[in-house]
Amino acid sequence: MQFLAEHDNLKHECGVFGVFGHPNAAAITALGLHALQHRGQEAAGIVSYDGKHFFAERRLGLVSDNFSKPQIVKQLSGNSAIGHVRYSTTGDTILRNVQPLFADLAGGGFAVAHNGNLTNARTLRNKLVNNGSIFQSTSDTETIMQLVALSRRESTIPRLIDALFQIEGAYALTILTNKKLIGVRDPFGIRFLVLGKLEGHYILASETCALDIIGAEFIREVENGEIVIITEDGIESIKPFSPKMARPCIFEYIYFARPDSIIGGQSVYEYRKALGTELAKETSIDADIIVPVPDSGVPAAIGFAEQSKTPFELGIIRNHYVGRTFIEPEASIRRLSVKLKHNVNSNLVKNKRVVLIDDSIVRGTTSVKIVQMVRDSGASEVHMCIGAPPIKFPDYYGIDTPDQNQLLASTHSLEDMRKYIGADSLAFLSLNGLYRAMGYPNGRDDQMPAYTDHCFTGDYPTLLRDQKSEDSVKQLSLLSE
Amino acid sequence: MQFLAEHDNLKHECGVFGVFGHPNAAAITALGLHALQHRGQEAAGIVSYDGKHFFAERRLGLVSDNFSKPQIVKQLSGNSAIGHVRYSTTGDTILRNVQPLFADLAGGGFAVAHNGNLTNARTLRNKLVNNGSIFQSTSDTETIMQLVALSRRESTIPRLIDALFQIEGAYALTILTNKKLIGVRDPFGIRFLVLGKLEGHYILASETCALDIIGAEFIREVENGEIVIITEDGIESIKPFSPKMARPCIFEYIYFARPDSIIGGQSVYEYRKALGTELAKETSIDADIIVPVPDSGVPAAIGFAEQSKTPFELGIIRNHYVGRTFIEPEASIRRLSVKLKHNVNSNLVKNKRVVLIDDSIVRGTTSVKIVQMVRDSGASEVHMCIGAPPIKFPDYYGIDTPDQNQLLASTHSLEDMRKYIGADSLAFLSLNGLYRAMGYPNGRDDQMPAYTDHCFTGDYPTLLRDQKSEDSVKQLSLLSE
Amino acid sequence: MQFLAEHDNLKHECGVFGVFGHPNAAAITALGLHALQHRGQEAAGIVSYDGKHFFAERRLGLVSDNFSKPQIVKQLSGNSAIGHVRYSTTGDTILRNVQPLFADLAGGGFAVAHNGNLTNARTLRNKLVNNGSIFQSTSDTETIMQLVALSRRESTIPRLIDALFQIEGAYALTILTNKKLIGVRDPFGIRFLVLGKLEGHYILASETCALDIIGAEFIREVENGEIVIITEDGIESIKPFSPKMARPCIFEYIYFARPDSIIGGQSVYEYRKALGTELAKETSIDADIIVPVPDSGVPAAIGFAEQSKTPFELGIIRNHYVGRTFIEPEASIRRLSVKLKHNVNSNLVKNKRVVLIDDSIVRGTTSVKIVQMVRDSGASEVHMCIGAPPIKFPDYYGIDTPDQNQLLASTHSLEDMRKYIGADSLAFLSLNGLYRAMGYPNGRDDQMPAYTDHCFTGDYPTLLRDQKSEDSVKQLSLLSE
Amino acid sequence: MQFLAEHDNLKHECGVFGVFGHPNAAAITALGLHALQHRGQEAAGIVSYDGKHFFAERRLGLVSDNFSKPQIVKQLSGNSAIGHVRYSTTGDTILRNVQPLFADLAGGGFAVAHNGNLTNARTLRNKLVNNGSIFQSTSDTETIMQLVALSRRESTIPRLIDALFQIEGAYALTILTNKKLIGVRDPFGIRFLVLGKLEGHYILASETCALDIIGAEFIREVENGEIVIITEDGIESIKPFSPKMARPCIFEYIYFARPDSIIGGQSVYEYRKALGTELAKETSIDADIIVPVPDSGVPAAIGFAEQSKTPFELGIIRNHYVGRTFIEPEASIRRLSVKLKHNVNSNLVKNKRVVLIDDSIVRGTTSVKIVQMVRDSGASEVHMCIGAPPIKFPDYYGIDTPDQNQLLASTHSLEDMRKYIGADSLAFLSLNGLYRAMGYPNGRDDQMPAYTDHCFTGDYPTLLRDQKSEDSVKQLSLLSE
Repeated sequence: MQFLAEHDNLKHECGVFGVFGHPNAAAITALGLHALQHRGQEAAGIVSYDGKHFFAERRLGLVSDNFSKPQIVKQLSGNSAIGHVRYSTTGDTILRNVQPLFADLAGGGFAVAHNGNLTNARTLRNKLVNNGSIFQSTSDTETIMQLVALSRRESTIPRLIDALFQIEGAYALTILTNKKLIGVRDPFGIRFLVLGKLEGHYILASETCALDIIGAEFIREVENGEIVIITEDGIESIKPFSPKMARPCIFEYIYFARPDSIIGGQSVYEYRKALGTELAKETSIDADIIVPVPDSGVPAAIGFAEQSKTPFELGIIRNHYVGRTFIEPEASIRRLSVKLKHNVNSNLVKNKRVVLIDDSIVRGTTSVKIVQMVRDSGASEVHMCIGAPPIKFPDYYGIDTPDQNQLLASTHSLEDMRKYIGADSLAFLSLNGLYRAMGYPNGRDDQMPAYTDHCFTGDYPTLLRDQKSEDSVKQLSLLSE
Repeated sequence: MQFLAEHDNLKHECGVFGVFGHPNAAAITALGLHALQHRGQEAAGIVSYDGKHFFAERRLGLVSDNFSKPQIVKQLSGNSAIGHVRYSTTGDTILRNVQPLFADLAGGGFAVAHNGNLTNARTLRNKLVNNGSIFQSTSDTETIMQLVALSRRESTIPRLIDALFQIEGAYALTILTNKKLIGVRDPFGIRFLVLGKLEGHYILASETCALDIIGAEFIREVENGEIVIITEDGIESIKPFSPKMARPCIFEYIYFARPDSIIGGQSVYEYRKALGTELAKETSIDADIIVPVPDSGVPAAIGFAEQSKTPFELGIIRNHYVGRTFIEPEASIRRLSVKLKHNVNSNLVKNKRVVLIDDSIVRGTTSVKIVQMVRDSGASEVHMCIGAPPIKFPDYYGIDTPDQNQLLASTHSLEDMRKYIGADSLAFLSLNGLYRAMGYPNGRDDQMPAYTDHCFTGDYPTLLRDQKSEDSVKQLSLLSE
Repeated sequence: MQFLAEHDNLKHECGVFGVFGHPNAAAITALGLHALQHRGQEAAGIVSYDGKHFFAERRLGLVSDNFSKPQIVKQLSGNSAIGHVRYSTTGDTILRNVQPLFADLAGGGFAVAHNGNLTNARTLRNKLVNNGSIFQSTSDTETIMQLVALSRRESTIPRLIDALFQIEGAYALTILTNKKLIGVRDPFGIRFLVLGKLEGHYILASETCALDIIGAEFIREVENGEIVIITEDGIESIKPFSPKMARPCIFEYIYFARPDSIIGGQSVYEYRKALGTELAKETSIDADIIVPVPDSGVPAAIGFAEQSKTPFELGIIRNHYVGRTFIEPEASIRRLSVKLKHNVNSNLVKNKRVVLIDDSIVRGTTSVKIVQMVRDSGASEVHMCIGAPPIKFPDYYGIDTPDQNQLLASTHSLEDMRKYIGADSLAFLSLNGLYRAMGYPNGRDDQMPAYTDHCFTGDYPTLLRDQKSEDSVKQLSLLSE
Repeated sequence: MQFLAEHDNLKHECGVFGVFGHPNAAAITALGLHALQHRGQEAAGIVSYDGKHFFAERRLGLVSDNFSKPQIVKQLSGNSAIGHVRYSTTGDTILRNVQPLFADLAGGGFAVAHNGNLTNARTLRNKLVNNGSIFQSTSDTETIMQLVALSRRESTIPRLIDALFQIEGAYALTILTNKKLIGVRDPFGIRFLVLGKLEGHYILASETCALDIIGAEFIREVENGEIVIITEDGIESIKPFSPKMARPCIFEYIYFARPDSIIGGQSVYEYRKALGTELAKETSIDADIIVPVPDSGVPAAIGFAEQSKTPFELGIIRNHYVGRTFIEPEASIRRLSVKLKHNVNSNLVKNKRVVLIDDSIVRGTTSVKIVQMVRDSGASEVHMCIGAPPIKFPDYYGIDTPDQNQLLASTHSLEDMRKYIGADSLAFLSLNGLYRAMGYPNGRDDQMPAYTDHCFTGDYPTLLRDQKSEDSVKQLSLLSE
């Protein structure tokens, strides 16, 4: 018997990277992916190009475990490379789904790394298979590659645009061909992509922390709907789509981006602290200590503590050595599972009125255990405050959320949720509070919301063609291997 | 420093297997592949189908090392399966080239295992890539699968025939789809394929020894140009090609098939013994002992010894524990390499006139060492007799031969060859002697030769489109991984 | 080229665990070791006893990677077990040094797990080898086992006491024999050991956090110089040594124990926060923000911020996915190494006067890089405050410290240290401040200091026989494997 | 479900090797062990000495798989080395039992490789453990090392003689110390050891085939009861035991030595052929073909066929790719097991009177299947002739034989054996015939038999102290790992 270590949270989806023209391309890409490791820990891959051949290494596991050996980096020869870290959203976690994907097209090699999720991938795939295309993976990303392969246009960029016009959903892409490094961000800019420069060579990455690790200068964010094309002659930008207002995914700010990454001129840590500040303004609890659920609740707890003038204390300790699975030999010790990851600093919370700060409640299973654990340690009151609105709707753009009926906030009233998790009180940040923390003093503009925030609101910016298809799901034939 | 263990011989190419409707399909396929292991030791694979899904396991290494664990066989569920053992001829030895290949076509899953080699695969591949097909391997076999995928016909068999009409070369195929197990042999029947039956269920295999191991009954050889289609309703045979006389590859008899396999009603061992008998008739050497170069020279040596009434002795001992590579730390001990595999039984050959019997001379490097080793052990005379004609031309149908200019017989006269290998005399079986041993008392019919024998004669039965193409080789972009 | 990921810190040494009579002994031990993982990440081992046989699993790597598979736990059958997590201090990191060690003595099996280091192990080993003992490891722990084997006493406990009377240094031991689970703490109690109870069965562990994870009740600390003997008949305590005042290692409080472990009725987190509070009292810096060097500096920084009424901010972000090694292809990107682990939240520190709080300066190499990194991010002032006195002397009791001449504080004045690390100011907590934080308002009692604090003072509680030996080090003959 | 591949035969036991003073010591040892691979395939090890340190590599598996990588050989630095190939007879097949064993004694390192088995090892071990020795393995060989460690004599050779005087049984040893390479053969010379020379440097090996592979000159056999001591000053021989007549193990000639090894001036192949010749003289069967059970029956079959003037035919084919285990998913296909290894050349035996020649019948299980298989292929008569007398008694000198009650010849009359295996007739070589084949025209001298032949006669040359001990077996406590 085995069980997945407790992880009732949202899963980061993926991270992408690219570098053009640097003599240490593969090493730089490995470092960049390492800085993006929080975006996906299941697998990582790098494809490089040396002017004649492409080289690929794709592995299950962490960047530092798989790409730290000099011989691995050495055989990824060449001065351009793209890379990918993955948490699987579409397709099984098997090696042939690990990105970057590669195809040997008529015009030469074509490698692509994708962060995001297409909402019409299955529909497109069925059509392509019916016309004779053979897919090598079960990844939605391959659809893009197959569409490029089939385009009747002459050169790479028009072929790519052909493909982009057919796909729907969220995507930040880095693409490597014989001549170019290409970065693409979807029309709404749902997923992130930034442009940097290292010793004169352009870099693309999901977040600025991947520029920091290699000492690269941040140039600018790639814009929504923009294609940047980097060649030996420099950089070019085209915008093939009809203009749309950007709506980046609000979850990047709240959960996914690393605290030290900069978005819109401000660090992610500061946004999150502001969530705590706003939450404290909306809430009035008479408490002794503010305790974050580590590590994700820490910035909001700092903000909350400052605003509420209540001491911030590390009342819950996290064990960083937790692997994916652990033993559970008998039901009698099953209750131990939550303690694999967290333990209460019991001397600290005993006889205290405790406010726990977390960033989300998804299914609620962890919250139940955390509250119980704090109560068992002698806290006189346990309040749970969440630095974001309730998650009521699933995501289809690259974040791993459970089905809607498993989202606690989708099926329970606030009071029922409070009872379920066993807290003395439960509070969520309001939707307008969220926007205020993001820097919109008037809260959300429902006509033109600044973010993709469907998990709170149900307001999806794109069509959901696969999801709404009445076709039964076409199950792939090959499962094993 | 490392070197490949001595192997100046022809390489077996591949073996295929298939079973339909048997509850132990994967286990039976593993056993069948084990019996065919002599045809390819680099990799092995099995694809099974359980009525809903296909399952695949493809591994580098031996069948008994990779397919002996019950859990491996168990997860290859279903009652139909095909399998493949491989020695790489086209494409690198990397996992994505290991067969059976699989594609998820519009009509459902399609798995194929191929023994042979196509002579227009590169030409076809270039055309397909230009039209937007993406190849997942560098194997020529994938071309067949892509052609089936692109056919505009409605159902599998017509689509397959569409594909077969476009390919040229040698092939014995086993194919597994949602409904069918299909066996195909090329128009000349260059590569072998036999049909058997086990407990009422049809079996396809490269050789009869794979029927023996599972206790299956031999039904008949699949004919040249024949497609056999096995379904729940029984077996059907179609012959879509214009009729041709069969010309099976003579090398299967001389080198590749296992001695206990039956072809044309006679065991391969008997054909090989007859080669020795004919060779003895053509040769007159006054000798004390007949010594086979083990293991391949043994049957011919037995025939030679009987015919020449000279004692047969195991004067050379082979070490069966030789792996692929061994150490060679310094030039000073490089001369040891041949002894990793062979040693002379020196007490036996001392002061004797020795006739060595081998099945071929390819580059001649092993023969040089063997002759020297026997002479060093004190033999008074060393004669080398080869149970086949000189190999002067390369193969393009699935046998790994060196370039023509590396074939000793292609660049040296008989006397120069004798000098090169250092023997007191050197004899090859004549071409007519070869046909006599095969059961043609009049020797080779040059108008209608009964076998594909181009390595001796240069008479290739098919077009060699890729080989004669003036296009420079189109190098694939992706090399690594 | 490869380099060890930046780790200019003190290394945790080891952790031990034991359970007697519980049906899930191995699973409980695995959980306990997981909670002690911060004490040693190089290797882990468990030995269990089922009433007839002992079973052992010893692996390099993390507990959760090696002891999470049910079959591993299952084959460690029996209801008693001891375990060990290791960071190598004596002996190479090779499997035969991984503990628990085991010997088949005349009286039956004897397994031992040791946290600490003996200061006369080499002297004893030389003597034993001269008398005919053969050592199976290069670990100092084996000396204990060999002494027990050679004792002329009749039963286990007297034989163990014989051995303990000969060894010097620091040790917390868990020992498993056919009949007993034994816990031992050295005469000064330098290393920790606590006693707990789970469902009526006794537990021994290095820290209380290992009791928490299994839900065991904390009974008491094993005392300095105490042997606790657990059998089916209950627990017995003996104190064979002449009484000494306890002097537990101060470093357990400052660095090694987990923040949620309880020592002397207070959590380690609280001691560390108090270090920050005392440090703030001793220091007066006009600053804008207090920034911990994560993760070790966090509690002191919280205390410092509260005391100094300056905002606490996560200005440095740590990447938790750093493995042991990482690539460094060229000198030109060597400077990146520190960023593998830490990055500055640059928006936060820009134009700010920053106080960095860390728990120690060992060689100083990390401090140099951290200060530079913060300065590069635009901080107007960078002050470094250390929540402990300067480390001037090496440890010989199980903590991995560099040679004395590599300890920055041993060779530099305060001002030279400040210049070396490039800070605007540098402050260490005073020795008396340290004792005040520990709850001794009058500071250190130099006649009877309450802790083993030699790294700050040079006051070693035991003889250092091996270290002062004039014999040249006797190098073991066998190095490899 | 899994089963061991059919192997109803005697197991080779072990092989040893040693080289002194050669710059390629480890590479030469690897080659020598490769030539001795037939003596043990479970594990292999090499210990080398470079004048300062010893280096060891011990691995489960084949020499060519584990010692072919240049880096492995390179780290076994130094110009002296000993090596071992192992089939486990005493002690589990676990890494700490793999030889050479090594101990760091007072006088320096001491490595030992042992072929044979001690008959008083358990008795000695119990005594040593009671006196405080700790064993690192469960191998009988460690007893020798522990006795050397405990000797009160001053230098290595007297200490070794001390130890040898206490042990009983069969042994050929190679020992490496800081100064010496030592070869030892037990008083009866039961196990083999030969001395050779390569480029002026002495070599020790179990058989001459290990000299051939490295091109070394054969000097002489080490004599029974002899110790040869090789140092920088040359070679010295001492004979510490009271003189005894040599009685080498007859099984080395019949089964274990490689056919090309020379013993007593004649190749092992010739002895085996003579077994077939004598067998044919003793037997009169009217048959059509003589068929060896491959590979072990081949030489005797050649001798038999020559003597009986009946054609020798390869009527049974062996698959050399059989690994240790194979799948057996269901009882219904369990009968296939024998065919994993052997298949009948059915066209050859059909309607023929067949004489099968094998080298032994142990349990008889394989013979049953082989006879049935030949009969199923249509043979009109199947006669089984064994080129040795019936095996009625177990071995205790290093050969893996089943318990006496599992030896077919120990529990069945000749006629019952014939019925059991299902042959038309069954014949064994007579004991005198065996000695005649060995070159003793008068057969066995029962007063002074020239060989250790207890498996046929029950005449054991040494005491069997452990075997006759009335003490219950002392089971070791530690089983797992």
